[in-house]
Amino acid sequence: MSANAGKLIGVGVGPGDPDLLTLKAARALGAAEFIAYFAKAGCTSHARTIAARHLRTGVAELPLHYPVTTELPACSDGYRDAMADFYDGAAAIIATELAAGRTVVVLCEGDPLFYGSYMHLHARLAPRFAAEIVAGVTGMSGCWSAAGMPIAQGDDVFTVLPATLPEDELARRLADADAAVIMKVGRHLAKLRRALACSGRLDRAIYVERGTMADSKTIPLAVKTDDDAPYFAVVLVPGWESRP
Amino acid sequence: MSANAGKLIGVGVGPGDPDLLTLKAARALGAAEFIAYFAKAGCTSHARTIAARHLRTGVAELPLHYPVTTELPACSDGYRDAMADFYDGAAAIIATELAAGRTVVVLCEGDPLFYGSYMHLHARLAPRFAAEIVAGVTGMSGCWSAAGMPIAQGDDVFTVLPATLPEDELARRLADADAAVIMKVGRHLAKLRRALACSGRLDRAIYVERGTMADSKTIPLAVKTDDDAPYFAVVLVPGWESRP
Repeated sequence: MSANAGKLIGVGVGPGDPDLLTLKAARALGAAEFIAYFAKAGCTSHARTIAARHLRTGVAELPLHYPVTTELPACSDGYRDAMADFYDGAAAIIATELAAGRTVVVLCEGDPLFYGSYMHLHARLAPRFAAEIVAGVTGMSGCWSAAGMPIAQGDDVFTVLPATLPEDELARRLADADAAVIMKVGRHLAKLRRALACSGRLDRAIYVERGTMADSKTIPLAVKTDDDAPYFAVVLVPGWESRP
Repeated sequence: MSANAGKLIGVGVGPGDPDLLTLKAARALGAAEFIAYFAKAGCTSHARTIAARHLRTGVAELPLHYPVTTELPACSDGYRDAMADFYDGAAAIIATELAAGRTVVVLCEGDPLFYGSYMHLHARLAPRFAAEIVAGVTGMSGCWSAAGMPIAQGDDVFTVLPATLPEDELARRLADADAAVIMKVGRHLAKLRRALACSGRLDRAIYVERGTMADSKTIPLAVKTDDDAPYFAVVLVPGWESRP
C-alpha cells in the first residue's frame, strides 16, 4: 500500500429517509470529491438519491451499472462469471483513483457490510488500500421502526432469511426462530405465506413495502394479496412473545 | 388518546460513536425539552453520554435506574416481577408527562426496537399515546463496521444468538446459519468457544469489545483468553463464504 494512495470509504446512507443518514456519513459525503454507486442499467441509484442533498456541486461520479443478466439463471456459472467480471472491472477503475491518491466514497443503501454490493469492492480493494466503513441504519431497522413494531427482546433468537429458500427450509427456520425478517420477497410471496402458515407465524407477520419512503405500505401479511410484491419488499415476524 | 397529549419519541443514538447518530436523531435531541433514559443504579447512562452534545442546556431529565436485582436469578418470578414493576412505574411517570401535553424523548443505545429497554415503555405507552421511532445504527453494525468485516451477503442466512443459550443449542444454531452475531458474551465465553469449535465456526469468529468506542478491541476469538469478557462483548461469525 503506497503512502500516497487514497482511501476507500464505504458510506451507509441508511434505509431511504435522507434524515436517517448519520452525521458521519453526511460529513463524508460533503467532503467527497469522487463518489461511486451501484445502479440497475437505465435506473438512477437509490443511494445517490438519498445522498443528493449532501454532495458538493461538481463532485466526480462513477455510476456502476449492473450488467443486464436477465437471460442467465442467477445460480448459473454464466451469471456468476458476469457478476465477477463486473465487480473486477469496477474495482479496477476505483483502484486507479486510489493509486492516484484520491479518496473514493462509495454510497451504500442501508449498512455497507450487511448484504450490500459494496462488499464486493471492499473484498477486492481493502487488502491493498486503506478502507473505512461508515455504518448505516439497515433497511430492516427502517422497516420495523416505521411500523412501530418491536422486533426482538431479551434472549430472543433473531434471524434474517432470503425468501429464495425452498418452502420446507423456510418453514423449518421460521419455526426455529423467535423473530425473523424475510428479504427479497418479490415473486416468492405465495411460497413464503405457506411457510409462515406451516410454522405458525402467519398471524403475526407484517408485510412492508418501500420501508422508510414517503409512500411506504405496512400491512398484516394476512390481508396482502400474493400478486404484486416488489423484489425489495420485506416481511417482519416480531418476537418478544411475553410482551406486556 | 387526547388531542392535547404529547408524543413519545424513541430515539436511537447508535452504537457508541456520537457521529453515528442520525440527522433525525440529532434534531429530535436538539428540540427535546424532556428526556428519559435507562441506566444501571449508580452509573451514568451510555445513551445519555452519546447524546450529550446535542441536548439543550436545562433539558428536563428522567434517569430510569434499573432496580438492583443481583440477589435474584434472571429467570425467577421474583426477577420478572421486579422488572415489570420497574417498567410499569417508569411508564406511569412518562404517561403523566404525555398526558400534560409534553413530548418525551427516550434515548436508546443502538436501535430502539432491536433488543432495547425502550421497547418496555413503547409496549405500555404506544397504545395510549402518539409514538414515533427514530431508527438507529445497531451495536452489531457498529462492531462489524469497525472491524471492516463483511458479515452477510446474497442468500446468506444470518442469525443473532444470545450467549445465554445452552452449549448444544448454540452449536446447533451456529452450524445451521451462514453468519451469526452472538450477544451477551460475558461469562459465557468458554461455553461459546466450545460451541463455535463444535460447529466448525471457531476459526472465523471475531471477538469485539466496546464496538465503536475509542478503546475498542477487535481480535480473532482464537487468541482471546476466556477470563475477562464484559457482558456487552459480542462475537461475529462472518458469512459470505464464496467471497473473492
